[in-house]
Amino acid sequence: MSKKYQVVGIGNSVVDVLSHVEDSFLAENGITKGVMTLIDLDRAADLYAKTGPSTEISGGSAANTIAGLASLGAKTAYVGKVKDDQLGHIFAHDLRAQGADFDTPLAPADHPAETGRCMVMVSADHERSMNTYLGVSEFLTPDDIDVAQMADADWIYLEGYRFDGPDSHAAFAKAIEACKGAGGKVSLTLSDPFCVERHRDAFREMIRNDVDLLFCNEHELCAMYETDDLTIALRLAAAEIETVACTVGAKGAYVWTGGEEFHAEATAVHIEDVTGAGDLFASGFFYGVITNRDPLTCGRMGNVAAGEIISHIGARPEADLKVLFEQENLLQNR
Amino acid sequence: MSKKYQVVGIGNSVVDVLSHVEDSFLAENGITKGVMTLIDLDRAADLYAKTGPSTEISGGSAANTIAGLASLGAKTAYVGKVKDDQLGHIFAHDLRAQGADFDTPLAPADHPAETGRCMVMVSADHERSMNTYLGVSEFLTPDDIDVAQMADADWIYLEGYRFDGPDSHAAFAKAIEACKGAGGKVSLTLSDPFCVERHRDAFREMIRNDVDLLFCNEHELCAMYETDDLTIALRLAAAEIETVACTVGAKGAYVWTGGEEFHAEATAVHIEDVTGAGDLFASGFFYGVITNRDPLTCGRMGNVAAGEIISHIGARPEADLKVLFEQENLLQNR
Repeated sequence: MSKKYQVVGIGNSVVDVLSHVEDSFLAENGITKGVMTLIDLDRAADLYAKTGPSTEISGGSAANTIAGLASLGAKTAYVGKVKDDQLGHIFAHDLRAQGADFDTPLAPADHPAETGRCMVMVSADHERSMNTYLGVSEFLTPDDIDVAQMADADWIYLEGYRFDGPDSHAAFAKAIEACKGAGGKVSLTLSDPFCVERHRDAFREMIRNDVDLLFCNEHELCAMYETDDLTIALRLAAAEIETVACTVGAKGAYVWTGGEEFHAEATAVHIEDVTGAGDLFASGFFYGVITNRDPLTCGRMGNVAAGEIISHIGARPEADLKVLFEQENLLQNR
Repeated sequence: MSKKYQVVGIGNSVVDVLSHVEDSFLAENGITKGVMTLIDLDRAADLYAKTGPSTEISGGSAANTIAGLASLGAKTAYVGKVKDDQLGHIFAHDLRAQGADFDTPLAPADHPAETGRCMVMVSADHERSMNTYLGVSEFLTPDDIDVAQMADADWIYLEGYRFDGPDSHAAFAKAIEACKGAGGKVSLTLSDPFCVERHRDAFREMIRNDVDLLFCNEHELCAMYETDDLTIALRLAAAEIETVACTVGAKGAYVWTGGEEFHAEATAVHIEDVTGAGDLFASGFFYGVITNRDPLTCGRMGNVAAGEIISHIGARPEADLKVLFEQENLLQNR
């Protein structure tokens, strides 16, 4: 009997606050371009007061991946913490409206923190710099993990960013045990090179013991294996993980699996905002995996989905990804 | 001595919740296409639960106009009611970040209503249908009108939509008296044909006694003067108002002023979402007025600003409007 869920994601639940900035603004405010930096509420308020008019769109790395998968018709759920406040309701609505289940209990209205938000600053070169106030997202505990749901998932998808926070490692361990115990598989995304620096030991342990599918980009994988040589990093990863899917920006993605090496070329697109490229790569790749496509087709589906997301502002898909797969003749591949 | 403000707008303060819908969704949910319908919180919750993933962008008709003017460097302020909640803070931030003053006291956190929101449903043909929960926006009272601010404005700009609500007429009367008493001028936008039906008598009285500049589209003006003939409606309006600026969709705008009639051709643009077209027409037109341009140039500036806003999702400008005016050789006109 097939399981209720094909992919259940666990991650940081944030609403993205997108604005355009000059590079000088980043420099003046000590913001490192291209990466994600955690900030507290005071810093968030200070930065927000200085930035221009913004657009709010639900975000969160794993939540973006699950939204993309749900838009493709996959059976999905998402686990993450938002509060019973306006932004929390927006976040929940946007996942459910896309067709994903989302049943994590809301943090109560009297919780001292708010729903998390990520200030996404998009530069003229379309690179994004993220400053994240985690808010209640940080307070996901093992109690929020529904073991029955994890057991009813073919795959769970763990967001590296979610390793920040007091009870997150225990929550992930509970999810992994329930999923693997019922024959499910585990995937992990490394999220960000600085995130890798913060959690290398925990990532290494999880990779050795539990991870069947690793998502990363070249910078994250090199940080993980402490090398400047991507080929070496890929070899080291492939030696301990069944499948490694590593994006390499405009050069597409490498997929190393079962002793074989594939290179999926990127599709040419007009780049507007790179926010969510990795998240939607994972959506497309996973869609290939759960529909039993070959590794190269999985990688190309990832590239097409990433290409859609970087062609507009925001990290949730606007176009029908399945139509885009069809246009690239990917749906016929098995 | 020049006044502190060139234009001060008063209107409904809402955050737009934008989503794409099928025409069948509008039909199934009894939504009238192309107009603004007021809804209560229950209906808002019901509709929101049924609509797809959304994007949140600050809106409000007069607020959009003021944001557009502020982006052009005009000295502006906005008056309208939001609550001390997350959406209220977003609304306030986006105006101030654009350079407009916004000092209306927030409704307190224990107010039973929330910050208003407008569900903007964009159809495949790019037409928008709006369902507005006014929330605390309805509770703007004469106490919220700072007479010193109104006296320090060359122009006040009154949003027709804001005639809904218990104390709004008294608030407008107080603003008009303070502005006119200090030698300022009054402009009004008719907002929507159904809004005209609801408030025709109040609009007529204000037009006869106080309005120096009227913004409208063809449907609103015909509703106002209860005729199907736009030329007749324009003649009747021009007989009692110094300047009438009437948009006519893809045909641009008519400007009747001081016994003269002008037709400003629309600029050709790719239409993505018509939300805010009238609001930004008013921004562009007003920019011409406050910089002493001729009536045709004012109309063309209005068309260019409207053209920018309909080329993307959301009713706040993304491009630099002054650059667009320059490209159309409008800045040299006096």
